[in-house]
Amino acid sequence: MYEKKNLPKRDEIFSEWYTRVILDAQLAEYGPVKGTMIIRPYGYAIWENLQKAMDKEIKAMGVENAYFPLFIPESFLSREKDHVEGFSPELAVVTHAGGEELVEKVVVRPTSETIMYDTYSKWVESWRDLPILVNQWNNVVRWEKRTALFLRTSEFLWQEGHTAHATHKESWDYVKWAMDMYAKIYRENYAIPGIVGRKSESEKFAGAVATLTYESLMPDGKALQSGTSHDLGQNFSKAFDISFQDKEGQKQFVWQTSWGFSTRSIGGLIMVHGDDQGLKLPPMLAPTQVVIIPVVNDENIIKHCEEIKSLLLEKNISVKFDSRDDERLGFKINKWELRGVPIRLEIGKNEVAADSATVVRRDNREKTSVEKKVIVNFISESLQSIQKDMYDNAVKFLEDNTHIVNDYAEFKSIMEGNRGFLKAMWCENADCEDKIKEETKASTRCLPIDSVEEQGKCIYCGKEAKHRWVFAQSY
Amino acid sequence: MYEKKNLPKRDEIFSEWYTRVILDAQLAEYGPVKGTMIIRPYGYAIWENLQKAMDKEIKAMGVENAYFPLFIPESFLSREKDHVEGFSPELAVVTHAGGEELVEKVVVRPTSETIMYDTYSKWVESWRDLPILVNQWNNVVRWEKRTALFLRTSEFLWQEGHTAHATHKESWDYVKWAMDMYAKIYRENYAIPGIVGRKSESEKFAGAVATLTYESLMPDGKALQSGTSHDLGQNFSKAFDISFQDKEGQKQFVWQTSWGFSTRSIGGLIMVHGDDQGLKLPPMLAPTQVVIIPVVNDENIIKHCEEIKSLLLEKNISVKFDSRDDERLGFKINKWELRGVPIRLEIGKNEVAADSATVVRRDNREKTSVEKKVIVNFISESLQSIQKDMYDNAVKFLEDNTHIVNDYAEFKSIMEGNRGFLKAMWCENADCEDKIKEETKASTRCLPIDSVEEQGKCIYCGKEAKHRWVFAQSY
Repeated sequence: MYEKKNLPKRDEIFSEWYTRVILDAQLAEYGPVKGTMIIRPYGYAIWENLQKAMDKEIKAMGVENAYFPLFIPESFLSREKDHVEGFSPELAVVTHAGGEELVEKVVVRPTSETIMYDTYSKWVESWRDLPILVNQWNNVVRWEKRTALFLRTSEFLWQEGHTAHATHKESWDYVKWAMDMYAKIYRENYAIPGIVGRKSESEKFAGAVATLTYESLMPDGKALQSGTSHDLGQNFSKAFDISFQDKEGQKQFVWQTSWGFSTRSIGGLIMVHGDDQGLKLPPMLAPTQVVIIPVVNDENIIKHCEEIKSLLLEKNISVKFDSRDDERLGFKINKWELRGVPIRLEIGKNEVAADSATVVRRDNREKTSVEKKVIVNFISESLQSIQKDMYDNAVKFLEDNTHIVNDYAEFKSIMEGNRGFLKAMWCENADCEDKIKEETKASTRCLPIDSVEEQGKCIYCGKEAKHRWVFAQSY
Repeated sequence: MYEKKNLPKRDEIFSEWYTRVILDAQLAEYGPVKGTMIIRPYGYAIWENLQKAMDKEIKAMGVENAYFPLFIPESFLSREKDHVEGFSPELAVVTHAGGEELVEKVVVRPTSETIMYDTYSKWVESWRDLPILVNQWNNVVRWEKRTALFLRTSEFLWQEGHTAHATHKESWDYVKWAMDMYAKIYRENYAIPGIVGRKSESEKFAGAVATLTYESLMPDGKALQSGTSHDLGQNFSKAFDISFQDKEGQKQFVWQTSWGFSTRSIGGLIMVHGDDQGLKLPPMLAPTQVVIIPVVNDENIIKHCEEIKSLLLEKNISVKFDSRDDERLGFKINKWELRGVPIRLEIGKNEVAADSATVVRRDNREKTSVEKKVIVNFISESLQSIQKDMYDNAVKFLEDNTHIVNDYAEFKSIMEGNRGFLKAMWCENADCEDKIKEETKASTRCLPIDSVEEQGKCIYCGKEAKHRWVFAQSY
């Protein structure tokens, strides 16, 4: 079942390295229908760890989980003009069911705004029915021409939160809360730093008034949009007539938000941390935090391994004892490095004699001999330190590859070289944005949420510009 | 948002009572596409409680979660003859995607055997790659002509486990384990008794060698098939070429199982326990186990409620404090009875003075005044006792409505009256099974797993019969 192959060097053929790590580490593989993905147990366990962490945050905010249907009447999408324009090209359409042609075709949800808000309009009558705070963990389908495992698949898994409020102030608080929650989870669980900011008019969500995004930077200098939170204003509530009587008896339309975080994030995880040996998983998301490998399958050694395993399990450290007898030590070491397990323990007769274990960190290959009586603490601390070091390294890369640029020639030259995040003044005219993209493949990623107004000139047209936007090529 | 209406009496118009409880208790409602269902937060929380309990059992058995695609190439289904015959009439078919007509149509999964086993054939080469132990929590689509909330919807949520083994003995152990697990969860969490048995040839899963089922009995005397576990033998492994080299180097086909448990179970939960006041939820699955209702919203009363709430939360009892000030006491009592919360606390000035609470059980309406200092223990014990009493009552109903019948006239007369489970000798000839169904609407539900061979005559044709099968009308 498991195959160890020689990986391509990460920095030579990045995209091939990426796919090969996913296949060889058994995270996922392509499904038989174009662009679909099979998430294998090892990859799905990462998603489950994310779900557990995020679901807790979502529920703590009072947002409840629900389930809305996969199938949406085709006519629903057309009710919000921008929304249908954005999603039409990517729809999968069911025309036949139960052996008959359907009178009204149904689309497979690309996202659930329309079907949920049609229902919200029935749930809301008075201000007392607000807020509505609902989240879904589900699958959505967007038919893509070019696909890549995790990053862009015809079907993907995600959560989509959809709230409705009496005032814009309140809905905006939820837009920001969701983005803060995503940023926290990226930083603390994924160990992936990023820039939080607002999307430009042309890059925002189809149907939104404003979109907040978390933009992280991949080792090839390209950005990954890794989670978005939308201020929908009253666009959908007017289209779907979600209205309520306020305290004064006046009819008002609700203010809405939607926010989503998907399995795409696992693509970022693989790229940001992986190296020539394969995957490198942060302890907070690793399905297995510690693997114990016996140097040989000798009775005393196995007993020693089992004892250490029990000690670690007691402390809720997720541990695997690889006692297979048909693979040699070197093969196993390569296998678990490829699979990115944060810590491995090597245990042979020397370790048994010394009542110890040899502890090896995946991230920096540091090797320490640790006595059994202190091993639990040592490993707990190492896991924390690995999590922190992985984040710090990613921060360093992000900082090293973020440039303030005031000259378009320099902008172009960086985009032809190592790429990265470029902070440049832009007049906020879509023509300049289009031209820059045409000439450099870099798009506006966001206006950082903490950006301050400057006096300056647009890097493209030279006209007045007030803000320094982040540009990058992107996935 | 919440509406309290007068429910129909349960035993007068059972099906209308059923639908109205679901709508009024805000468990679920119909979606816009025919036969689809919106599972509202209160209903979804029941499913989440089930998932948490069952996922633990599944993982403890070494079965790992994964995710396979929603879309299956149409040709895959035809590879197993019985399977395609069984599912063809219910398929939803995607013919267009991404703005183009698809070269090969894809079906929306009605179940995942075919897409998973196509992949399994690539995963398995040697006996060392076995067993494969994979489960999915996902959504499936079966286009139904007649639909009912939870019981029969075009799309439903479930888990589907799919294992592959080197020997039939080992796979059969998993078939039985899965059914034991379902039976345990039905009895311990749903408080629903049932009969475990084997399906007849005509009632077994399309593509299986044998199907085990859990059959429970609804208050209207009809059976609900509530979870099935299939011995697939080598039917699919031969169709999908899932073969391996055994220890002797011989090519063998794997032995497979599949087993599923769905949101249909929530339909059973509603029917088995509900009454004229609405839903009655067993504590093990109730999203809210205790609701605290202030008699009036007075400051001292609210403080007292909050104190008791904290005490209960500390003990991990799930508790809700209903402090709304726009609903009167009677309305709130009805509302929480309708929603089936196992225990409510009523707290007014008398309770504050006595440092106590009035504890009311939903199941038997028993009212007890309990001092605050002992309330946590009292409630913990009451929750256990409610869970037990609900199960015992359901067992009594099942026993009272299970009849050993040796005469076809009596069989028919019971089926025209109160119905129930009838245990009758059957020759195992499909013609008799069909005729009985035609004449009484009762089908074979199962041959109980603990049944012993008898000497007898088929209740329909009078020819030799060896076993007493369970017959019932069914959902």
